[in-house]
Amino acid sequence: MNIITILTDFGLQDGYPGVMKGVIYRIAPSVQIVDISHQVPPQNISRGARILERSYAFFPPGTIHIAVVDPGVGTKRRPMAAKIGDYFFVGPDNGIFTAPLLRAEGEGKAIECVELNQPEYWLENVSHVFHGRDIFAPVAAHLANGVALQNLGIPIQNPVLLNLPQAQIFENQILGEITDVDHFGNLSTNIPGNWLSKYSPGNLTFCLGDVIIHGLNKTFGERPEGEWVAFIDSDNYLALAIVNGNAASKAQCGAGTPIIVKIST
Amino acid sequence: MNIITILTDFGLQDGYPGVMKGVIYRIAPSVQIVDISHQVPPQNISRGARILERSYAFFPPGTIHIAVVDPGVGTKRRPMAAKIGDYFFVGPDNGIFTAPLLRAEGEGKAIECVELNQPEYWLENVSHVFHGRDIFAPVAAHLANGVALQNLGIPIQNPVLLNLPQAQIFENQILGEITDVDHFGNLSTNIPGNWLSKYSPGNLTFCLGDVIIHGLNKTFGERPEGEWVAFIDSDNYLALAIVNGNAASKAQCGAGTPIIVKIST
Amino acid sequence: MNIITILTDFGLQDGYPGVMKGVIYRIAPSVQIVDISHQVPPQNISRGARILERSYAFFPPGTIHIAVVDPGVGTKRRPMAAKIGDYFFVGPDNGIFTAPLLRAEGEGKAIECVELNQPEYWLENVSHVFHGRDIFAPVAAHLANGVALQNLGIPIQNPVLLNLPQAQIFENQILGEITDVDHFGNLSTNIPGNWLSKYSPGNLTFCLGDVIIHGLNKTFGERPEGEWVAFIDSDNYLALAIVNGNAASKAQCGAGTPIIVKIST
Repeated sequence: MNIITILTDFGLQDGYPGVMKGVIYRIAPSVQIVDISHQVPPQNISRGARILERSYAFFPPGTIHIAVVDPGVGTKRRPMAAKIGDYFFVGPDNGIFTAPLLRAEGEGKAIECVELNQPEYWLENVSHVFHGRDIFAPVAAHLANGVALQNLGIPIQNPVLLNLPQAQIFENQILGEITDVDHFGNLSTNIPGNWLSKYSPGNLTFCLGDVIIHGLNKTFGERPEGEWVAFIDSDNYLALAIVNGNAASKAQCGAGTPIIVKIST
Repeated sequence: MNIITILTDFGLQDGYPGVMKGVIYRIAPSVQIVDISHQVPPQNISRGARILERSYAFFPPGTIHIAVVDPGVGTKRRPMAAKIGDYFFVGPDNGIFTAPLLRAEGEGKAIECVELNQPEYWLENVSHVFHGRDIFAPVAAHLANGVALQNLGIPIQNPVLLNLPQAQIFENQILGEITDVDHFGNLSTNIPGNWLSKYSPGNLTFCLGDVIIHGLNKTFGERPEGEWVAFIDSDNYLALAIVNGNAASKAQCGAGTPIIVKIST
Repeated sequence: MNIITILTDFGLQDGYPGVMKGVIYRIAPSVQIVDISHQVPPQNISRGARILERSYAFFPPGTIHIAVVDPGVGTKRRPMAAKIGDYFFVGPDNGIFTAPLLRAEGEGKAIECVELNQPEYWLENVSHVFHGRDIFAPVAAHLANGVALQNLGIPIQNPVLLNLPQAQIFENQILGEITDVDHFGNLSTNIPGNWLSKYSPGNLTFCLGDVIIHGLNKTFGERPEGEWVAFIDSDNYLALAIVNGNAASKAQCGAGTPIIVKIST
C-alpha cells in the first residue's frame, strides 16, 4: 500500500487538508494518507523545510511527500514533482525540498525533478490560489497509481535551494543559532551533535543571551524541574530547553537567535 | 473502500473525534476515515455548513459525511441521515446540510432524508450529550456496511435549511458580506466570482470599511507583500486578503462585515 | 486489520506524531492509525490518563493504544507494553495507564505488563528524548504484526498507578472536584453520575465557588443560552457547563477546583 504524506501551512480549521484527501482518494482509493503538519507558520517556507527534513526519511521507501507552503501560488514559481533518493516529493519549487535534495546530493543518490505541466493529471478546473487541491494532491495520487514522473512534466535541473544558516566551529567556541521552537518551547539549533560529542560534557558551556548553561546532559530528567538543560535532540542537533517548562517564552527568543558554545579544556 | 468524513466543533484536545473513529471501526473495520475539521467555532452551525459546502463534493461519490455542530443535542432537534445527490450525510437536522440540500435541489438530484429512530443501529447506551459518538458514528458505519437509509429511520420531507445571506447586484455596485475568515486571516465573501468576471478587472473597486482595493487580481503574488489584494478564491467567491499578512486582524472584521463592490465603466 | 491509536502531548505543529506513523508503517504497513489527541497539556500525565480513560474501550478489542506523556523520557522510568483486559498499551510506566489497569483489576480481567528491554524491536538508533518514535511506535507496530508481549520485555508486577482524587459522599452532600476542562470550557468532575441518579433532580444543588446551580438537567438545550447547567456527561460523571458558553473562562476555574453537591429531601 502506498503512503502519501501532507505538510502544509493551511491550519486545521477550514477543511483544506481534508479536501486534498478527498481529491487523492478519488484518484487513488487505496493509498494511506498521513498528516505531517498543517501548522507550519503561514508562508514560512524554511520552517516547513525543517519539519520535512526531520520527518521524510522515517517513512517507508517510495512514500510520496506533498509539501505546500506556497506564498507564490499562481505566480511563475514552478509546480514540481521529484524522485529524490528513495522518496517522491510534490509541491512548489520554492526551496521547501532543500533538505532531501542536499542529503541525496551528499550521499550520491539519484535526483530527478520535473516541472509539472500536464493538466490531464490535475483537477479539471485549476484555481489560482489552491494548487494543493488542484495540482499537487492529484499529481501525488497519480504517482501512487504508478504514473511515471516523466509523464507529469518536463525535467528541471536547478530546483530552488534555501540558503539555510550553517553553524561555524572555531578552536574554543562554536557559533550557531536557533532554527526552530517546538510545541514545548524547546529550542533546536543548527549545531550538529557530533561536533559536541568529542568534548567532555562538563567542558561545554552554552550561552543564549543572558542564559548560561554549564554542561551537556543526555535528557530533560537529569536536571531539576525549571532548570535550563542542553542536550542532543532526536535529530542529532544541539537543543536547549527548560525542564518541564517553556524555554522560548522564558528567554523571549526564536528562530535566528544566536547561540555560542564555549569549549574549555 | 468506503470513506467516512467527520466535521465537528469538538476540538482536537479531548479525544472526542478519536472516540468516534473507534466506534466506527468496531462496526465497519475497513472504512477509511478523513477529518474535515474539528475546529468549527463552538456551536457555530453556519460556519460548519460553509466548511461542508466547500469540501463534500471533492470526495468520491458514495462518501458518507458526518457533520456534528449540535447545540441542540439531546433535545427535540431530529437526528438525521440523508442521501443527497451522490453523497450520504449524517448529523443533526439543524441546517448544517443546507449547502448540499440546496445544490441538489438546484441540480434536480434526488434527496432522501430520514429521521433516525432505530436504536439497534446506535450504541447500546446513548448519552444525552454526545450523539456524535452514540448515534451518528454508528449510523455512518452501518451505512458504510450497506444498511439501507430507509432501515435507519422514517422519511422526512422538510430538513432544516439555514437562511444564508445572499449578495445583491445592482447596476453599478454589488453588496455582499464576509462569510468566513480562514486560518490565514483571508476574508471569504458571499459574492460569486462569476458576477465579477464579466467586468474588466481594473473597473472594480472593493470597499471594506476604510479599506479600498482597486482592481481584481488573480492571486496573492501579483501584489507586493503587505498590500491588500482582491481575488476569486478556490470556491469561486470573491475574497480579500493582505499578501503574506492577516487581513482579518488588520481590518478588525469578521463574518457579517459588509463588502461593497463599485463598478466603473 | 489492526488498529493503533496515539495519544501524546507532542502538539500538531512539529510533525512528531507524523514521524511516529512513518515508523509504524515501515514495520506494519497494513495497520490503521487513529489519533486520540496530541494536545494533552505538556507533561500533564493525569490529563493524558483521563483522556485515555474515556477513549480506549470504544475501540475494537485488540486495539493497541500508544500513550506518550513522558517528562521522564530517557531517565530510569521504565518503558512499558501491556495487555490489559481486551486491549494493548504501549508507553512510559508513569501512571498514564492507571484507568485501564484499575478497571481490569476491578473486573477481574487479565493484566500482563512487560518492561521493554529488547532493542531488536526498536529503531536502530534510540535518542534520549523521543522514545515515542524510537521505542514505543516500533514496539506497537511489532505487536500489531503478532509479536508476543513476552518477547518484547521482562514481566513487571507493579506498574505505576496515579492517585486520582476520589469524590466523597455524605448524608446530605457530596464533595468532589473538577477533573478536566474540555474544548468547550465544560467542566468534568469526579462525581459519578450514578451517585446522583437515585435522587430527584430537583433536590440537587451544585456549588462551584460563587456559582449555584439548582437542579440536574439531561442536556444543554433544556436551559436558555448563557445559563449554567448541571448534567451527567457522556462518561457518566457530573459535569457543569454554561449553555453555548465557556464555563471555565466565566468561573475562572480548572482541574482541582472543589464542587459541592447539596442534597435536600
